[in-house]
Amino acid sequence: MSGRVRRLQEQLEQPLLVTNPVNVKYLVGFDSSNCALIVERNRIRLLTDFRYIQAARAIEDVEVVETRRDTIGAIGETLARQQVSFEGVIPWSLHQRLETAGVRLTPADGKIEQLRAVKDEQELETIRRACAITDRAYERLAALQFSGRTERDVAWELLQIFHEEGADDQAFEFIVGAGPTGSQPHGRAGDRVIAEGELVVVDAGCIVDGYASDYTRTFAVGRVEGELREAYDVVLAAQQAALDGIRAGITGVEADALARDVIDASDFAGKLGHGLGHGIGLDVHEAPRLSTESPDTLEPGNVVTVEPGVYVDGRFGIRIEDDVVVTAGGIENLTKLTKDWTEVS
Amino acid sequence: MSGRVRRLQEQLEQPLLVTNPVNVKYLVGFDSSNCALIVERNRIRLLTDFRYIQAARAIEDVEVVETRRDTIGAIGETLARQQVSFEGVIPWSLHQRLETAGVRLTPADGKIEQLRAVKDEQELETIRRACAITDRAYERLAALQFSGRTERDVAWELLQIFHEEGADDQAFEFIVGAGPTGSQPHGRAGDRVIAEGELVVVDAGCIVDGYASDYTRTFAVGRVEGELREAYDVVLAAQQAALDGIRAGITGVEADALARDVIDASDFAGKLGHGLGHGIGLDVHEAPRLSTESPDTLEPGNVVTVEPGVYVDGRFGIRIEDDVVVTAGGIENLTKLTKDWTEVS
Repeated sequence: MSGRVRRLQEQLEQPLLVTNPVNVKYLVGFDSSNCALIVERNRIRLLTDFRYIQAARAIEDVEVVETRRDTIGAIGETLARQQVSFEGVIPWSLHQRLETAGVRLTPADGKIEQLRAVKDEQELETIRRACAITDRAYERLAALQFSGRTERDVAWELLQIFHEEGADDQAFEFIVGAGPTGSQPHGRAGDRVIAEGELVVVDAGCIVDGYASDYTRTFAVGRVEGELREAYDVVLAAQQAALDGIRAGITGVEADALARDVIDASDFAGKLGHGLGHGIGLDVHEAPRLSTESPDTLEPGNVVTVEPGVYVDGRFGIRIEDDVVVTAGGIENLTKLTKDWTEVS
Repeated sequence: MSGRVRRLQEQLEQPLLVTNPVNVKYLVGFDSSNCALIVERNRIRLLTDFRYIQAARAIEDVEVVETRRDTIGAIGETLARQQVSFEGVIPWSLHQRLETAGVRLTPADGKIEQLRAVKDEQELETIRRACAITDRAYERLAALQFSGRTERDVAWELLQIFHEEGADDQAFEFIVGAGPTGSQPHGRAGDRVIAEGELVVVDAGCIVDGYASDYTRTFAVGRVEGELREAYDVVLAAQQAALDGIRAGITGVEADALARDVIDASDFAGKLGHGLGHGIGLDVHEAPRLSTESPDTLEPGNVVTVEPGVYVDGRFGIRIEDDVVVTAGGIENLTKLTKDWTEVS
């Protein structure tokens, strides 16, 4: 049994129903879209249907319960008349069904998310591998032709590069945003043809053994000067301020402010329209959050993105994003790429 | 305003809160991971945060409300003291927050899913395009070398083929399951090397303009005879029985039985361990369901998979899957590929 599930079991006063598939994967290494765990201090039951049952039986130290496709119905039968903790992310309708089946439910929000936020050495090693692949992919990316190609075409070539470098999968749909597309922080790679004189934001990452990387670099297509270059320097300075100041013990709000204050003191005040960063791991967005609304305090072993940006409506966007491990005294930056102003062809 | 949202509006007695991003995309064409719609008879509000606000403003006939990153908090403020319908898939914790904020919530389960299950002509055209691409990709797939390569390697080459044929994306992580891997209906493509004499199950599909295709074919790697070939013929006969019998007006349970009865009358009785099929559309799995547990009745305009299989634990699996449109008198089969026994090299 993994240390993760043992740490969880030690905290339990009553059975905990785990229905988030990512949390099931985290705790026992079982990867299925239709499963649930019932974790007790001295017992773990894994419920899943026929399609996944062979894989379930290969998991050590769990009792496998084969259910109908309607695994939720089986949960109700299994837990009727018991007092059970559950994850707040479960659909409301599932909660209703379990209550109707006589399960006495009390919320146990965030227990597993808190465990997941602090990575163990094995997880850190996996994320380091994902980042090393991402470093190499971005190095090759900067050598590609950009001008005259569509954003979508560049995104596809980048995916091929990731595959060649050993990634299992893409961590999310890549963003390749040139000129005005880049001014939408979550603009997708589209059919727009990239032109000389534009900035292009590339936000990409990969999955290695289930764990994500998440990088962004902003390139100049040919010669770009003036306001765009000034904005780049502001974002770079904002990121450096955050990288210099982040350490265990500060809050997500304080971390966010390290970068935001630099941008807000510049000509681009108010133009960082999103939070500074987020945890990465089995999900691309997980705890802790670095933002003006974050409830979190940073701990050693958190792995977070640091990604300030400046977005000028309909004209251009700039974002620079590294992945870092939070340590007692500061950070370990997993992103080894240059952040110098980079011209691509 | 699209006919879809008008049809929904006509059914509304009170404001409907839509939080499932796929449903938001279906109703107003807005694609974001952090958004909500408040639909009323004569008014639609779209709530989203800064990152998506430019895209939101491009949507016709909706009032855009810019929220903090915590869009849910803003919903509570916007709807306090009102009687509101909501989707049962919303997380329990969100339901609690809205109730605490004074929103009076009543469930309106499945309204949009029911609309989505019946495709309009534009949606059918899009799915036909996705299927035409998938036909071409599978034709090319059958010409590839299988033996001596890993499942993962074949899956990657298939993804490249889909891209070359014009797919926007893969619809799901492709399954390439050879020999024992194929006996797990949802076994992933792994590092196992495919060998001569095995059956290999390939389950793949693509996204075109947001809509999914979902096919499966099972190939023989070199010469395969005996039980495996007999099982193939049983699955093929089961699928044909379903294709012959499916039409609007029958239930999902009846549709499932058309194929299941053929398998259960054969030497492979009990070996179809999953439902016969499911709706496809903006999601790869949506209403209606064809299974022993389905609550649905088929309607003209449903688009469903028809995918019987036989799975023999640890030894082999066979599945044959077409995508079909349900019509008043029968089906339109969108899958034009051969289902004849196919040997690959």
